[in-house]
Amino acid sequence: MTTPTSGATVIPVATLRESAGAASKFGNSPAQSSPAVTFPLNRWWVAGFSWELGDTPIARTLLNRPMVLFRSPEGGVAALDDRCCHKDLPLSCGSVEQRGIRCGYHGLLYDKSGTCIEIPGQERIPAKARVNSYPLRERNQILWVWIGNQPGGQPDTDPPEYAFHDDPRFQFGGDRYHYEAPYQLIHDNLLDLSHVGYVHQKTIGGNPTQHMNAPFSVNVVDNIVRVTRPMPNTAPPLTYTSVWPFKGLVDRWQEVEFHVSHLLIWTGATDAGAGNADSPELNGFHIRGFHGVTPETDTTTHYFWTVATNPHPERTDAVKVLVEQTASTFNEDKVVIEAQWRNQHRFPGYAQVDIHIDAGPNRARRIVAALTAND
Amino acid sequence: MTTPTSGATVIPVATLRESAGAASKFGNSPAQSSPAVTFPLNRWWVAGFSWELGDTPIARTLLNRPMVLFRSPEGGVAALDDRCCHKDLPLSCGSVEQRGIRCGYHGLLYDKSGTCIEIPGQERIPAKARVNSYPLRERNQILWVWIGNQPGGQPDTDPPEYAFHDDPRFQFGGDRYHYEAPYQLIHDNLLDLSHVGYVHQKTIGGNPTQHMNAPFSVNVVDNIVRVTRPMPNTAPPLTYTSVWPFKGLVDRWQEVEFHVSHLLIWTGATDAGAGNADSPELNGFHIRGFHGVTPETDTTTHYFWTVATNPHPERTDAVKVLVEQTASTFNEDKVVIEAQWRNQHRFPGYAQVDIHIDAGPNRARRIVAALTAND
Amino acid sequence: MTTPTSGATVIPVATLRESAGAASKFGNSPAQSSPAVTFPLNRWWVAGFSWELGDTPIARTLLNRPMVLFRSPEGGVAALDDRCCHKDLPLSCGSVEQRGIRCGYHGLLYDKSGTCIEIPGQERIPAKARVNSYPLRERNQILWVWIGNQPGGQPDTDPPEYAFHDDPRFQFGGDRYHYEAPYQLIHDNLLDLSHVGYVHQKTIGGNPTQHMNAPFSVNVVDNIVRVTRPMPNTAPPLTYTSVWPFKGLVDRWQEVEFHVSHLLIWTGATDAGAGNADSPELNGFHIRGFHGVTPETDTTTHYFWTVATNPHPERTDAVKVLVEQTASTFNEDKVVIEAQWRNQHRFPGYAQVDIHIDAGPNRARRIVAALTAND
Repeated sequence: MTTPTSGATVIPVATLRESAGAASKFGNSPAQSSPAVTFPLNRWWVAGFSWELGDTPIARTLLNRPMVLFRSPEGGVAALDDRCCHKDLPLSCGSVEQRGIRCGYHGLLYDKSGTCIEIPGQERIPAKARVNSYPLRERNQILWVWIGNQPGGQPDTDPPEYAFHDDPRFQFGGDRYHYEAPYQLIHDNLLDLSHVGYVHQKTIGGNPTQHMNAPFSVNVVDNIVRVTRPMPNTAPPLTYTSVWPFKGLVDRWQEVEFHVSHLLIWTGATDAGAGNADSPELNGFHIRGFHGVTPETDTTTHYFWTVATNPHPERTDAVKVLVEQTASTFNEDKVVIEAQWRNQHRFPGYAQVDIHIDAGPNRARRIVAALTAND
Repeated sequence: MTTPTSGATVIPVATLRESAGAASKFGNSPAQSSPAVTFPLNRWWVAGFSWELGDTPIARTLLNRPMVLFRSPEGGVAALDDRCCHKDLPLSCGSVEQRGIRCGYHGLLYDKSGTCIEIPGQERIPAKARVNSYPLRERNQILWVWIGNQPGGQPDTDPPEYAFHDDPRFQFGGDRYHYEAPYQLIHDNLLDLSHVGYVHQKTIGGNPTQHMNAPFSVNVVDNIVRVTRPMPNTAPPLTYTSVWPFKGLVDRWQEVEFHVSHLLIWTGATDAGAGNADSPELNGFHIRGFHGVTPETDTTTHYFWTVATNPHPERTDAVKVLVEQTASTFNEDKVVIEAQWRNQHRFPGYAQVDIHIDAGPNRARRIVAALTAND
Repeated sequence: MTTPTSGATVIPVATLRESAGAASKFGNSPAQSSPAVTFPLNRWWVAGFSWELGDTPIARTLLNRPMVLFRSPEGGVAALDDRCCHKDLPLSCGSVEQRGIRCGYHGLLYDKSGTCIEIPGQERIPAKARVNSYPLRERNQILWVWIGNQPGGQPDTDPPEYAFHDDPRFQFGGDRYHYEAPYQLIHDNLLDLSHVGYVHQKTIGGNPTQHMNAPFSVNVVDNIVRVTRPMPNTAPPLTYTSVWPFKGLVDRWQEVEFHVSHLLIWTGATDAGAGNADSPELNGFHIRGFHGVTPETDTTTHYFWTVATNPHPERTDAVKVLVEQTASTFNEDKVVIEAQWRNQHRFPGYAQVDIHIDAGPNRARRIVAALTAND
């Protein structure tokens, strides 16, 4: 684990491990064949968190590409095809050296661009001795990868900024969850705030009917979907009262922003009547959630999340409590979403009946479909 | 578990649990596609036992239909497609209420007919908001389900009676076993009494040669196959002597009746010469076995069994001993049948060589083939 | 386990068990269909070691044929199709008797030729009541099986001799490993001595660069590939010094012989300058390795290995140490080879780049391809 270097304090929940079997389920690859495009590729996707990538390479399949991620002692991070071009051993079985990553079978050494720069016992290095590399960038403790819709294509933008990871007024923690479900089921879940009452009744939920009946608005601007829902003068849920000394009823808000490769969820509350509804950041309890939802394969997903909060002076363990309860809450979602996905296999081709709360998720699905078609 | 309300005393062997993974292997469904008919559908099949269905819904795939079974607090039992029509979550992940079953994702409520009667936060309920239901009946502590060969078809008969579960002279117990094998391999096994000597040598078996040489008769009347075998003047097996004080050799009998969806097996013994061979119910030790053999999928099976006995006054633990030994015996069969099925995959298309004891099983297979073709 | 009867002392590493699930993955069979030939069949392949085959039959799939191996109390060993011709139960679920093997379901008895010689309860034995048998021979404590390229074809040679298992100057031990990888990946590994420095750095490896730079020669005569590599005046690895009292640097040699169905690997060392490079058997430390590499299926492999050594008088535990360290070393190879195979699925159709050390493996692959085409 790398110690965060900037303002915010990071509290990792757990040692993040790659699920060993996941990647082996997958077959296609970008370099020598043209797989069907099932994700919008011309954008930055979350590949991991900075603190995951220490001295040891990580094997991680991202958007159907089995990659090895590593941090060079010279500085910088790299993502290569996870395969030595000699005998196919995953490079992630090898070791990181000053100049790159060395295969654990016969010692071929690759630099960060994927070029083989040493074959032990042999002078000449064939021109074909190289593997694909992918742009990998580190910003605000998030690792972002770019696949692009053309082999070898380069990004035309910087990765998104996410300032709360480096804001000294906030503390945060997070984790990576592996889902046996396609990524858009997680979008659906995050853009629909009403399930909170049923799925999370014991944690952040509270009264189910209150959630289902709360009015919400959906706005779409430039491929960004924003779902907002004020819940004025309501009882705060358990998670809230456990980390902030509210006096009684609260003015609570929820705001979800969908950015295709990731979502930002801002929730929080002030004592009822105490705040300005239009600028709730001025006081009260805030949760800033980052949600990187990156397809591993067509049917499995990496879910990278953090929650940041402004701890109350009297509640020094606020972020610890919040991260623990968030982890439990997200596990409740995971159980539901994976059960939903398994059930879609048991009932193939059955039509879904839409209800009122599907407005946000359906807008997001239309954006993804349009972007994927254009890629 | 529900306490049995009628005459016989039920002694359940174990908490019956659904094998979590089994149902997800299955794909087809009756409502929106026409699967190949691989079972005779126009009849009652066993869906479970009454004591399995308490406050919590049960997920159970029956004849390729993934169903949720639940008991309504208002009375009555119901079987629905195990899928909310909104976002596909299994209804078995939800909870039972006074008026029906509520989905655990967004709270849609369904009544026993599969009609959605509440969508939280929304006034209008679309006409399409409903799921398939299946007739489910409870009789003699057995749950019977009807699929029918037409969507929405209704049964034209009552489910079979099975009086021994409600006969005060008998005590019984049983269990549900899950088989990784198609259901007809279990028919073969139950209709062939000669394997007892090899597979069950340590429990109900006794001398193998005696079993293989015992004469038996096969009769077929109205799609019922009856295999009977008297074994007069033979040594009683261990199971028998452990629950009944026989004086020495016994007149033993075995009678198997195949009823397509279930089999009835009547075995027992009297002291040799003491009884009337034509009416052995007058005295001695009796076992009345109920065997519901219900396909889960084309290649997996639910096996619902009970054994009832008339306990000897001096052997108050007779039914406990009998149920435990039966459970062991049926596990011996399960090992053999699952190994047989796996091996049929390793030797696909190899012809079987029939022997004398196949007469009963082969008659049953012909009946199933004819009924399935007619469906 | 059978006690070895001849000169050398055998020290088995572990109770050798068949991996239960492996065989069930497999489908085709020789008797009633013509599978594509993917291995050269007209030769002896290793089926096991003598000490594996005691009173209990062994289920083992060899070259895509699911077989039961058993040792007759009358003497001799036999290999049959692992399937009773009546109801398909594996014969390996049955028991060995004086006259053959008896099925555990209805008691059919088969002799060593696969002919059914008893059907309990029935006089007549149909002519079709038989299963395929395969020539199985025992020589130097190795069990060899012959499939042949014609159904029922008989071998035209004796199985290979392997005298070190019966040489009183040597002691040996070994094991059977199961690989989730096709057999030729193990050939590649054994014929390439340079991976030793990377994969086995902690055991038999030593300095990686030294291994990659050591000159080697490759010779091919009559479908035998021989790779030899002298390593004069080098530091002995840990395994060597732990079992032989070398004075300092050593003259070390490695000689690998590929015989299609098995490989012989002769390695060892003398004190530097002490020996005659042309006849190193005169003194020093010797390891004679036997490596039976038998396809289980197209994609899985049985790896039967022994190591024999001439123990130094002062190191009475030499063979024990050697076998333990060899077991560890071969497990290191297994990890690499299985990872390599899984990765070939993740990157299908990617071309490999050859390097200098591939000369030996590539010659072996050409021989296998030619032999398979001729079969």
